[in-house]
Amino acid sequence: MRYDIAILGSGPAGLSAAINAKVRNKNIIVFGNSNLSDKIVKAPKVDNYLGIYDTTGENLKEMFKSHIDKMGIEITEERINNVYAMGEYFALMVNEKTYEATTVILATGIEYAKPIKGEEEFLGRGVGYCATCDAALYRGKKVVIVGYNDEAEEEANFVMEIASNVYYIPMYKGEYKLADGIEVIKDVPIEVLGDMKANKLILRNSEIDVDGIFFIRNSISPKYLVPGLEVEGGHIKVDRSMRTNIKGCFASGDCIGKPYQYIKAAGEGQVAALNAVSYIDKK
Amino acid sequence: MRYDIAILGSGPAGLSAAINAKVRNKNIIVFGNSNLSDKIVKAPKVDNYLGIYDTTGENLKEMFKSHIDKMGIEITEERINNVYAMGEYFALMVNEKTYEATTVILATGIEYAKPIKGEEEFLGRGVGYCATCDAALYRGKKVVIVGYNDEAEEEANFVMEIASNVYYIPMYKGEYKLADGIEVIKDVPIEVLGDMKANKLILRNSEIDVDGIFFIRNSISPKYLVPGLEVEGGHIKVDRSMRTNIKGCFASGDCIGKPYQYIKAAGEGQVAALNAVSYIDKK
Repeated sequence: MRYDIAILGSGPAGLSAAINAKVRNKNIIVFGNSNLSDKIVKAPKVDNYLGIYDTTGENLKEMFKSHIDKMGIEITEERINNVYAMGEYFALMVNEKTYEATTVILATGIEYAKPIKGEEEFLGRGVGYCATCDAALYRGKKVVIVGYNDEAEEEANFVMEIASNVYYIPMYKGEYKLADGIEVIKDVPIEVLGDMKANKLILRNSEIDVDGIFFIRNSISPKYLVPGLEVEGGHIKVDRSMRTNIKGCFASGDCIGKPYQYIKAAGEGQVAALNAVSYIDKK
Repeated sequence: MRYDIAILGSGPAGLSAAINAKVRNKNIIVFGNSNLSDKIVKAPKVDNYLGIYDTTGENLKEMFKSHIDKMGIEITEERINNVYAMGEYFALMVNEKTYEATTVILATGIEYAKPIKGEEEFLGRGVGYCATCDAALYRGKKVVIVGYNDEAEEEANFVMEIASNVYYIPMYKGEYKLADGIEVIKDVPIEVLGDMKANKLILRNSEIDVDGIFFIRNSISPKYLVPGLEVEGGHIKVDRSMRTNIKGCFASGDCIGKPYQYIKAAGEGQVAALNAVSYIDKK
């Protein structure tokens, strides 16, 4: 099954894209979380969303939720690891699964954690962002998983079936549901070292010799998410039609630039969706 | 008195600009009409304004109205004839009055009436859009006023005090409150003719020899409204920050391009306002 439009993100940009695509009868899938957007929920007071005065982020979230519910739009709670432009369509990788879509709208926001020292230098050479994708490369080897959320635990468990040693470094508090044999290290990663390939992770109080290091964060920087995507000053580069440099790939919201505001993002999501629709209709 | 921001237009772009500028404590004036936007009021069903599902244009208008009312934003019902960039500020001309503002946000929509044949050719040479502004040039002469709304009647009355003959061609139905001596012609203008200057107006069923012809429409094309403004394919050219080619002059909404949609316009109005605010704060 191939979707017309895959929307990555469930903040105002992603949801506005979704309702506009739906109004145009497109077959869509929205990846995000059921809380919609942590950033919205935390806003204590919102006065500048035209038509809805003196509200809270929580209330605005409820209005958005009610809007998509009434239109029958669901949020798929999966984290896309990679988006590959295949020519006629895009392949969206979620660990072991693949989704296909004719167009993609990136509405992933702007909360990227800063990479640690050496991380970008060794990316693809012992450093990765999707452990399950690359697990096969580490058969019988030593792997570190730096987990920023509990989804990373599943990745660690999967890798443990293949690797000889798995070290799990949780960057969050909680109960860790980890397979037997996984060693939990409560320390803070500082730097990746290596020669041709990464071979050592320096932590604040220790260091580990390893073959592979995976950082499983809440969001992936768009240039790693979509190989070949043009990024400028930390934001995805788009034209006035919200087109990126990759045909069929659109972007909107905070990930394309300031100001980081709800109705700006919603407006852009609409423009992205309507242009994705016309791109599909011209095919 | 000089305003921080003058906003031209009371549709979603203008109102969103207004609330955002007001939140930032700027001193604003909004030119438009109390009905906000005829285009909105006429929309029978709106589903794609994120947060407000299954509504009507009339209802959306009421929500916008309530929003600006609660924030103490008023609409000034005057039609700006010209906006002149004076360097440190803008002069906004309303017939005999002038307003001053440090920045201008154009949110004038896209309902420009098409010019008639010869109109643009003779603009500034016997053809004009503001009769009261240019009345002094027509002392003891023959002037035609083509009026698209009842405000044009006041212009005709003013010109009648100076000109020898005033012909009034109403393009709308109603009672015309015209000064003695003004001749009403119920016919449709087709073409402006002339040599160095316009000297004849061809109507469907007649023609008039004249010295000056004024077209008083509901909206003025932006390139005549703001001399020097860069326009591309009928739309005001802006960058991603909603800046036009004139420093301190921003634009948003339908007048800068498609899609002609409410939340797209509202998002752009917000971006224009926030960039106008930062332009002012840097001064």
